[in-house]
Amino acid sequence: MSFSSLSDYQTRRQDLILADRALRADHKTGQLSELEAQADKVIRDLRAAEAESIWSREYEGIPHPFPGMEFLTGKRSIIVQTKLFEILGKMPKGGLLHAHVDATVNVAHLLNLATKYPAIHVRASTALNATNIGSVLPELRPLPEDLRSSAGLIALTDSNYVPDTWVQFNKAKESFSPQLGGPEGFDRWLTAAMTINPTEAYVTHNTVTKIWQKFQSTFLVAAPLVRYRPIHKEYCREFILSSIADGISYVEPRINFLKDIVRPFISADARSHVPHREILQDFDEVLNEVKADLKAQGKGDHFIGARIIYTTIRFITPEELEWYLQECIDLKKEFPHLIAGFDLVGDENVLKPLIYYIEPLLKFRKMQEDAGVEIPFIFHGGETLGDGTEADMNLYDAILLGTKRIGHGFSLVKHPKLIEICKERDIAIEVCPISNEILRLTSSMHMHPLPILLNQGVPVALCSDDPSVFGNMGLTFDYFQVLAASEITGLIQLGEMAKDSIKYSTLEQADKEQALSAWQKRWEEFLKYVVTEGPRYL
Amino acid sequence: MSFSSLSDYQTRRQDLILADRALRADHKTGQLSELEAQADKVIRDLRAAEAESIWSREYEGIPHPFPGMEFLTGKRSIIVQTKLFEILGKMPKGGLLHAHVDATVNVAHLLNLATKYPAIHVRASTALNATNIGSVLPELRPLPEDLRSSAGLIALTDSNYVPDTWVQFNKAKESFSPQLGGPEGFDRWLTAAMTINPTEAYVTHNTVTKIWQKFQSTFLVAAPLVRYRPIHKEYCREFILSSIADGISYVEPRINFLKDIVRPFISADARSHVPHREILQDFDEVLNEVKADLKAQGKGDHFIGARIIYTTIRFITPEELEWYLQECIDLKKEFPHLIAGFDLVGDENVLKPLIYYIEPLLKFRKMQEDAGVEIPFIFHGGETLGDGTEADMNLYDAILLGTKRIGHGFSLVKHPKLIEICKERDIAIEVCPISNEILRLTSSMHMHPLPILLNQGVPVALCSDDPSVFGNMGLTFDYFQVLAASEITGLIQLGEMAKDSIKYSTLEQADKEQALSAWQKRWEEFLKYVVTEGPRYL
Repeated sequence: MSFSSLSDYQTRRQDLILADRALRADHKTGQLSELEAQADKVIRDLRAAEAESIWSREYEGIPHPFPGMEFLTGKRSIIVQTKLFEILGKMPKGGLLHAHVDATVNVAHLLNLATKYPAIHVRASTALNATNIGSVLPELRPLPEDLRSSAGLIALTDSNYVPDTWVQFNKAKESFSPQLGGPEGFDRWLTAAMTINPTEAYVTHNTVTKIWQKFQSTFLVAAPLVRYRPIHKEYCREFILSSIADGISYVEPRINFLKDIVRPFISADARSHVPHREILQDFDEVLNEVKADLKAQGKGDHFIGARIIYTTIRFITPEELEWYLQECIDLKKEFPHLIAGFDLVGDENVLKPLIYYIEPLLKFRKMQEDAGVEIPFIFHGGETLGDGTEADMNLYDAILLGTKRIGHGFSLVKHPKLIEICKERDIAIEVCPISNEILRLTSSMHMHPLPILLNQGVPVALCSDDPSVFGNMGLTFDYFQVLAASEITGLIQLGEMAKDSIKYSTLEQADKEQALSAWQKRWEEFLKYVVTEGPRYL
Repeated sequence: MSFSSLSDYQTRRQDLILADRALRADHKTGQLSELEAQADKVIRDLRAAEAESIWSREYEGIPHPFPGMEFLTGKRSIIVQTKLFEILGKMPKGGLLHAHVDATVNVAHLLNLATKYPAIHVRASTALNATNIGSVLPELRPLPEDLRSSAGLIALTDSNYVPDTWVQFNKAKESFSPQLGGPEGFDRWLTAAMTINPTEAYVTHNTVTKIWQKFQSTFLVAAPLVRYRPIHKEYCREFILSSIADGISYVEPRINFLKDIVRPFISADARSHVPHREILQDFDEVLNEVKADLKAQGKGDHFIGARIIYTTIRFITPEELEWYLQECIDLKKEFPHLIAGFDLVGDENVLKPLIYYIEPLLKFRKMQEDAGVEIPFIFHGGETLGDGTEADMNLYDAILLGTKRIGHGFSLVKHPKLIEICKERDIAIEVCPISNEILRLTSSMHMHPLPILLNQGVPVALCSDDPSVFGNMGLTFDYFQVLAASEITGLIQLGEMAKDSIKYSTLEQADKEQALSAWQKRWEEFLKYVVTEGPRYL
């Protein structure tokens, strides 16, 4: 290639850059409204200003901060202090398409809910002291009334505590030894067991395999609380309300349905397991109450609703899966407006791949036809660093089985043909940036493959995955991390992802249009806010 | 998509996998010779066996090893113990297309060379003791004879040592305090300053910015030794000989030419700077001696030769660059067989981007035409985690300027149009897996974008970059890391990359064909060895 002049070079350089970015959703330079262009510039200027003013300083215990850095380290001392974060908090986010209900409400709220139910008890495998408190896990359980009488009155921190004796939650909290922090120390002990801290993610458990062990442990500890029916209902309410507060107008969470012994839902009297249809009834009630409340406040268009992706865990047998597929169909018939799809969850690197379940999964279409329902697969796939491992190969099966979206799809960028198919068939990727980073698929946002997906024109919705464990409540943190780590992605791209999170939801067409139009209205207001208030921070 | 049967599904699944891998160089199932197929299987079986037998154990100080793990941590206790590593050591590697001569010979050898020249002196900014030895850097310098008389006789570790007094290298070594390890402690002190250790890479300097600081420091410490003309000549010889010993049959290293004060080449009498043409003369002599020796041993086809990529550092002004471009042309005229191309080196994230030099770079073609020579650009580009930063944008300029290959191209995978162009114009990527990992672009081989390039069909040559600093001497380590971290890449793909390293060299067509045919012969021998000896390890 030869160039007639420097300006010829510059022109062709610009053409090449535009051609390279032509598939991006935000590739519409010249087509932006005046307001969009201005707001985009304010955000870019603010990002650049804060890269200097905020990110180039040292912070206690953070020797080398950078935008897009390890979330758990940067969150409190830096990220939440930025104006960029404050502004993004007000952005209308569209839908949240990938979150596991069990892990959506911040732990402080959950522990507060626990204080309200006398059934909730806690025990430990040994008396707690300063030496063992970091390693002994709490066990929680709602006990039926007749068993509560035998529950211990001795503090968990008393050296005379008899290992594995149940203590009522509030009593355990009040009697927690002042040497271990008293009631606050009790909450810290529980919180540590239900969340991942920076040392775990970045030092002691700094591989995918090891951090998954801690990750799974947080679910096992929290499940008896979260899945106690009265708490679960309030938990779902809080999930929805806090999502709305963060600018999310639709949620499509996954709920894990597991029959019998493994993490069942427990009835209010703690005597029995709750049939799954009653969990959906609760969810429906909460939903209707929230919507009625919003309507009464004149904010009806702030929340379009919620639908549930029925999931079970990929450690079951193919025969057991058939039972779940049938239950999912039965629930879809009873709650057609609530069931959005079907998925299998759990560590893809360790548990069963989709191909293991191929027979029941292939049968599912026929089962749906017979029942007169339609339930799309919305599979997790490629949440892995593997190259050709079973977890990576799940992407082939997810796509062949007609998945509507792909959960994570972290390894999708390795697969040119699958990328092509995702674009042809309009399969969106539920990208969970902070989850991927904390679960050590990427060391920081800068190694995340998201820019590859965006530049290839694959539709993407940003998601939070398990915010109660990761601390990325709402979607603002995930949007922030993505924005901070790029010089290309700006406000327009964030808006496009928000729109895609509605477009690729399972909402009916009419609802989708209504949601999109409500989003557009709030987006315009948000842009005005950015243009008006943003420059004050520069 | 619907499937008539399970076997229909399986067939279409296999078709999809093959379509997804159709662009890979190793995508020729069914076209493999019996020998290739057998050898590939042996290596896959051995990899799987060692994943169990070697990688699933714990090692002292390595709580969670995995294939493709951090190189500096896994190298000695694990990688070099594997049979896979032993076998790959015997593989014919083709050409080494990306290595900086200053950093190609192991430090032990360099320190041994230093003992042979009385001119070599060393000093420190303070007397060394157990407390400061980890932070005080050695300064090395060849001194002219008349200055040597003033050189101190006191040990660097003597509390009476006068800061910054030169001590002759051998004397400094012999007199090094036994408390600090004596002569071996002296070598350890120097080695630590010229290499990166696991703690630096993975703890204290665990970001791209910080590790580059240590990385650059290793060059500053070693340069006065490496660039002392008599040592440099022996250093180049050892680089070539050790490459040949590792199965490399051609090298195309970069030599940094810097005029005057910055890291000059120093004459044997240590009185003057060496004109760059004399460095090339030395290189040429070494080359001819090595080739003659090999021929005498009947191993003439083990080494086809070497050519040098002329480089300077991207901190100069555009005006200064013109001087270097002209010198490069002058050297090409005098040593047409030795000058392979032109490049700019140094941290792309911090130093000047290509666009800063666009005027002289655009002039270069005309300058070549006037001089009747042809010197391709072989640019570094995209050695960065940045998304749209200057370092990332270098890829646009490298490609517009007609680069023959791209050094690193780490961020290329983000750029769909540039990938397309690389394939159309047959631009190979010099991928340096271990360098990228130690310089923190990727946390382990599993996050490296190489599989994306391979699956997109972009030609790739694996390279070592700066093996004296990283400890990845030869190419066996880099091939090992790539093989260990994938379930897809096998021996056939490694062979294709070896072939590409010859195909995309700057060798003349006739030499290239000769090199390829010699490689093919050795490859067949290697495959036979794998098939014969490999199964013994299973």
